[in-house]
Amino acid sequence: MEWPLTLAAVLFLAAYAIQIIARPGGLLNVLCEIVLIATWAVFVVDYVVRLAITQRRWRWFYRHLLDLAIVVLPMLRPLRLMRFLTVLALIGRSTGNMLRGRVVLYTVGATVLTVFIAALSVFDAERGVGDIDTFPDAVWWAFVTITTVGYGDYYPVTAAGRIVAVGLMIGGIALIGVVTATLASWIVERVADQTSKTVSATEAQVEGLRSEIVELKQMIRELRPTS
Amino acid sequence: MEWPLTLAAVLFLAAYAIQIIARPGGLLNVLCEIVLIATWAVFVVDYVVRLAITQRRWRWFYRHLLDLAIVVLPMLRPLRLMRFLTVLALIGRSTGNMLRGRVVLYTVGATVLTVFIAALSVFDAERGVGDIDTFPDAVWWAFVTITTVGYGDYYPVTAAGRIVAVGLMIGGIALIGVVTATLASWIVERVADQTSKTVSATEAQVEGLRSEIVELKQMIRELRPTS
Amino acid sequence: MEWPLTLAAVLFLAAYAIQIIARPGGLLNVLCEIVLIATWAVFVVDYVVRLAITQRRWRWFYRHLLDLAIVVLPMLRPLRLMRFLTVLALIGRSTGNMLRGRVVLYTVGATVLTVFIAALSVFDAERGVGDIDTFPDAVWWAFVTITTVGYGDYYPVTAAGRIVAVGLMIGGIALIGVVTATLASWIVERVADQTSKTVSATEAQVEGLRSEIVELKQMIRELRPTS
Amino acid sequence: MEWPLTLAAVLFLAAYAIQIIARPGGLLNVLCEIVLIATWAVFVVDYVVRLAITQRRWRWFYRHLLDLAIVVLPMLRPLRLMRFLTVLALIGRSTGNMLRGRVVLYTVGATVLTVFIAALSVFDAERGVGDIDTFPDAVWWAFVTITTVGYGDYYPVTAAGRIVAVGLMIGGIALIGVVTATLASWIVERVADQTSKTVSATEAQVEGLRSEIVELKQMIRELRPTS
Repeated sequence: MEWPLTLAAVLFLAAYAIQIIARPGGLLNVLCEIVLIATWAVFVVDYVVRLAITQRRWRWFYRHLLDLAIVVLPMLRPLRLMRFLTVLALIGRSTGNMLRGRVVLYTVGATVLTVFIAALSVFDAERGVGDIDTFPDAVWWAFVTITTVGYGDYYPVTAAGRIVAVGLMIGGIALIGVVTATLASWIVERVADQTSKTVSATEAQVEGLRSEIVELKQMIRELRPTS
Repeated sequence: MEWPLTLAAVLFLAAYAIQIIARPGGLLNVLCEIVLIATWAVFVVDYVVRLAITQRRWRWFYRHLLDLAIVVLPMLRPLRLMRFLTVLALIGRSTGNMLRGRVVLYTVGATVLTVFIAALSVFDAERGVGDIDTFPDAVWWAFVTITTVGYGDYYPVTAAGRIVAVGLMIGGIALIGVVTATLASWIVERVADQTSKTVSATEAQVEGLRSEIVELKQMIRELRPTS
Repeated sequence: MEWPLTLAAVLFLAAYAIQIIARPGGLLNVLCEIVLIATWAVFVVDYVVRLAITQRRWRWFYRHLLDLAIVVLPMLRPLRLMRFLTVLALIGRSTGNMLRGRVVLYTVGATVLTVFIAALSVFDAERGVGDIDTFPDAVWWAFVTITTVGYGDYYPVTAAGRIVAVGLMIGGIALIGVVTATLASWIVERVADQTSKTVSATEAQVEGLRSEIVELKQMIRELRPTS
Repeated sequence: MEWPLTLAAVLFLAAYAIQIIARPGGLLNVLCEIVLIATWAVFVVDYVVRLAITQRRWRWFYRHLLDLAIVVLPMLRPLRLMRFLTVLALIGRSTGNMLRGRVVLYTVGATVLTVFIAALSVFDAERGVGDIDTFPDAVWWAFVTITTVGYGDYYPVTAAGRIVAVGLMIGGIALIGVVTATLASWIVERVADQTSKTVSATEAQVEGLRSEIVELKQMIRELRPTS
């Protein structure tokens, strides 16, 4: 069920972006509406079926509150795409430094996706009300916000836009955290590599002890027939 | 004495928020005043009693300067609620990754509380003076500040508002620090998991050594009767 | 020679602050000038004497470029006070978590000192030119800058003010770094505490091995007289 | 081939900076154009030759996409200089704490270079269009952006300027990350130093075990002739 849902999320995001940015009329608008409703139906069916086939329903319900939010709030639906990024990361499993590589790939993907969705949502909420009047401006604003730079040349003024902005700021804090933590893990490991010779020396010592004892046993074995 | 104090802090925060946001008149205002004075009395009594029953009074005094500040400064009183968050965290003790889980829960709770209290205080200080004229604007300003984004669409102009803002900024630095540190700890541990096989191998080697020596003793024990 | 230099730095900072903030006339101004020149002379004498009594002069010169900068640039002279903070930290040596405690104390002290000096310098450079026209505004600006919030309600426009601001921003990055690193070290250690039982078990095992071998020696010693 | 390319990057940066800042006419402009084209030719030749002499061409192509970008985009060419910084760092190999020292040196160099190149590019893109009208203003803007302060006194309004700005903001996040990670690594190591006595004690114990076993062997050797 993973791939159909990811596909539904991609389609939803595409239709949502077309509706907001291009404001199509006539047939294209109807098509977009159909895609939005159809993909939403996919998420609802997936949620209901999984809830139905599980045994401890309340426990499942509490642990899948995010899934419920994805069904209820259209904005969160593309979050499903972040799972898709994990799948992509699995392909690169053969290369070393896997965990960090995966974290980096996931971070880049999640940041791009977050910036895109936040720009869409804010553009939708602010157009005609605040200063954010074109989609490129919304993307620029999203980058200025997620990096916590905050020039103040554009800022949301509607409640919806501000809620999206707060989410984006929290994403920015998380972004700084992930970048720093990955670098810290790398530096700590590199420094530890230089001190690891001591540890392997100890292992060699234990191995030396074992061979000494093997010799001992041989010596005692030679004692036995004589006595 | 923990639960009454936490309850007092909740009541204080509620009455304080109602007074600042709703500016009630008549009976409700009197009620709020009574709650504010009563909860303050609870904190004073708690502080005095604890100071009275302790033995090394000066040492206790130095180590509980924060408690004194909570009694003296009304603004700091809701900080007591942060202890309440610790209590909540204890409930979730059974899940793994406990320490980090607790840190995350505490961080989320402390951030929400800090943003709320800072918004209240700044709203109280700036209303009618600066640009921050509604409570939602104050909350928006608090989020923009604690994430260190700082658009500059709203900023405090009074001394009281600026002192609150500096506290909020320091909270923001701490927030970035906690998020990053928790992620770093997780990544470092996950990377270390992959190298831990070497360490357990050494332990297995020592265990191997022990059994070799046990065999040796048995061999010498067999020698004895013969000689 | 540490205490006289620290005292000179305190006096320099006091006279410098009085001159900039209060703009005194007459006797007080002359007194401030005398203090500024006298404290500068102390730093010059200290630098020259240390350079004279050292053996490898070029090496000493390269390794003490900061000291030269302190002599040449009046702005940097209060940096000497940061050594004083280390002395304060030594007093608290008895408490556990010493290194981190020292880092925290040093960070708080260095931050307060940096904000104060930066506010003084920017106030000196910008007064009458830009928006930063009172000392409290300069302090507010310094806090907004060092926490990287950057509202943009005040910003320097002169070259001197901007150089100070860049230094303050770099200080802000360092501040975030120190706070995060200290927290990360604490969390990593706390998590490591929970896994340390494995390591001490290994030590116990090695101790067990030793006593097994001692028994072995005793058994062989008992063999000897019989044969 | 490393030094000619680095030299080419230095020449390119110098000619690029002269053209943008000084806007020379006549001979100097022609000379700058020649240098820009000649250094570009060096990069193209280097790329083509390396691609020609490699065996697994597609693999090499994928792993050297940055090199292709350096050839195609003039802006990225000075990035080659960052390798030069590594060379400088090798000189300081003899001092302890090498890895972190290298990281610090590389960070300072990369930050200065990034600020300079970003200021050049934004100045080139924004001059006459937005507020950034002098090169010192562009440098000031670059520092305000890379430290994520973002006053908002200057900000780019053209598409090219904004793309450079986003790159600079990402550089700022990386800068915070590197500073924090280096500090964290240092603090974690310093704290670990205090607990390392336990580990070396274990090593001493293992060494003790070995000498005990050597004694054992000697005792058994003395047993042999008797029996």
